[in-house]
Amino acid sequence: MKVISLETIRAALSPADVLDAVRYALIAHAESRTIVPAPIHLSFPRAGGDAHVKAGMIADSATFTVKLATGFYLNASRGLPSTSGVVIVASAETGEVLAILDDRGWLTATRTAAAAALATDALAPPGPLTLGVIGTGTQASLAADWLRLLRPVKSVLIAGRRPEAARDLAQRIGGAAAASLSDVLAQADVVLTATASATALFPANAARPGTHFTALGADMPGKQELPEGLFAAACVTVDDLDQASDHGELAHALRARVLTADRVMLLGSVLRDQPDRPPNVTTIADLTGVGALDAALAEKAFAATCH
Amino acid sequence: MKVISLETIRAALSPADVLDAVRYALIAHAESRTIVPAPIHLSFPRAGGDAHVKAGMIADSATFTVKLATGFYLNASRGLPSTSGVVIVASAETGEVLAILDDRGWLTATRTAAAAALATDALAPPGPLTLGVIGTGTQASLAADWLRLLRPVKSVLIAGRRPEAARDLAQRIGGAAAASLSDVLAQADVVLTATASATALFPANAARPGTHFTALGADMPGKQELPEGLFAAACVTVDDLDQASDHGELAHALRARVLTADRVMLLGSVLRDQPDRPPNVTTIADLTGVGALDAALAEKAFAATCH
Repeated sequence: MKVISLETIRAALSPADVLDAVRYALIAHAESRTIVPAPIHLSFPRAGGDAHVKAGMIADSATFTVKLATGFYLNASRGLPSTSGVVIVASAETGEVLAILDDRGWLTATRTAAAAALATDALAPPGPLTLGVIGTGTQASLAADWLRLLRPVKSVLIAGRRPEAARDLAQRIGGAAAASLSDVLAQADVVLTATASATALFPANAARPGTHFTALGADMPGKQELPEGLFAAACVTVDDLDQASDHGELAHALRARVLTADRVMLLGSVLRDQPDRPPNVTTIADLTGVGALDAALAEKAFAATCH
Repeated sequence: MKVISLETIRAALSPADVLDAVRYALIAHAESRTIVPAPIHLSFPRAGGDAHVKAGMIADSATFTVKLATGFYLNASRGLPSTSGVVIVASAETGEVLAILDDRGWLTATRTAAAAALATDALAPPGPLTLGVIGTGTQASLAADWLRLLRPVKSVLIAGRRPEAARDLAQRIGGAAAASLSDVLAQADVVLTATASATALFPANAARPGTHFTALGADMPGKQELPEGLFAAACVTVDDLDQASDHGELAHALRARVLTADRVMLLGSVLRDQPDRPPNVTTIADLTGVGALDAALAEKAFAATCH
């Protein structure tokens, strides 16, 4: 059993390696060639924390992975990182534990950002983009970074609840803090939402038709970023139909009966088939996070660092 | 994050430490002071393997654990161990991953044997025992070893499908291979069953009234060691009522309607209250394995090796 440090993992995986692994896993998932059992969830209400355990594999792969990811939101006040985690890589041939990836949540954050970038690139209007970002956390920042690897970005406009956080992020990624969320919606071709919001961030009639939205925030019940009404006339793509129908943005829209699930596309199919974007139609990518992406990226990290 | 080797774990935990931790966890479990979410199960039919992921904690404990345990039964023919695994110990206060116990399945095998010894000692007739063992694998051997730490054993009689394996085990633990399974049932005060059997090992009328049985084998649907009829007049104790009713020996007896669940006692309550054994009544301990025992033992191992 080898223990692989975060530094080793980062050094071993090029951005192209990450994008390849995530694209491959999303396509495999759309083709039902992944094994993703229901995760384990633990709550720590007194400590303000929760933990998820996800197992996953791509069918016919030589390894499977078990990932622990924790989020304890009072840690910041103690000067500790709020997220932590570790990934076990085991052999699908012998059951042997091959490696522990001491990634401290890096693989999850990276595959989430890479999936957001792939979805946005595939669904956004052609050409250089005016990017809107709603949210000022790590995931908002990473998603913008990864999108620039796939697409020229003309300008970035950032909105967040805390103006100083929006200014900080703008400085870091080379954009501008927006005066208001309406400004972002009025100017951006594509809008990334990466917040922990529990209610829609804007009313449906504030969105410009033809805009593309990629929503990353809703990863468990009780979260919402996009208004249900936005789904009425939109082309909707999800990473996993069961999860999105249960607790993604799509769940709210299905409950409000503004669309039916048979109109929803899978991101893996879009990445494989690269259909043309209908002009002037709003598109939505609703991403809830798929365990098979962890497996694909962890296997790549393992293969790149252990021989 | 520390990585703790099997050798370090074994050296740090005395038998008394193990028995204390397992007794404590069983009592906490009977008092609903444990958190044991439904496990994740993965099957690898082509490789003849399966994997379980169990999370668990004792309420108000400083840590929780996530355990991967694998069993690949074609490994033996390749000269590899058939079981493997690893335990993650994480903080219940901050979510931080504190340690990886590279125990290769030792904690699971040990807590299973210790629970079997505690159950057998608590439920067997008083005084030195004539011990019967059905099964010749690691778990049969370990359970006999651990029982000797709690009770004088006069003699051990071993029955198994393969006579040479029964003779090997008899030599190792200081007993005798039985001529037949009937001999074991005729002579033993207590009978440990630790097989992977899918059907009852003997008919109910072959058992002597007043015998105590501890059954370890049925850990998933489709397994059975004890005949349903044995439960009709027996005092029945289980480690976990939901699991035993779902896939333990008890599940077969409940389906056959030879008893109702309200007559079943919890092992933790028996260990706490130490009720007197009714004379000449058959007693049964049906053990399916509880995730909280992993957590208690892993926490003890972590505390004993990390300061």
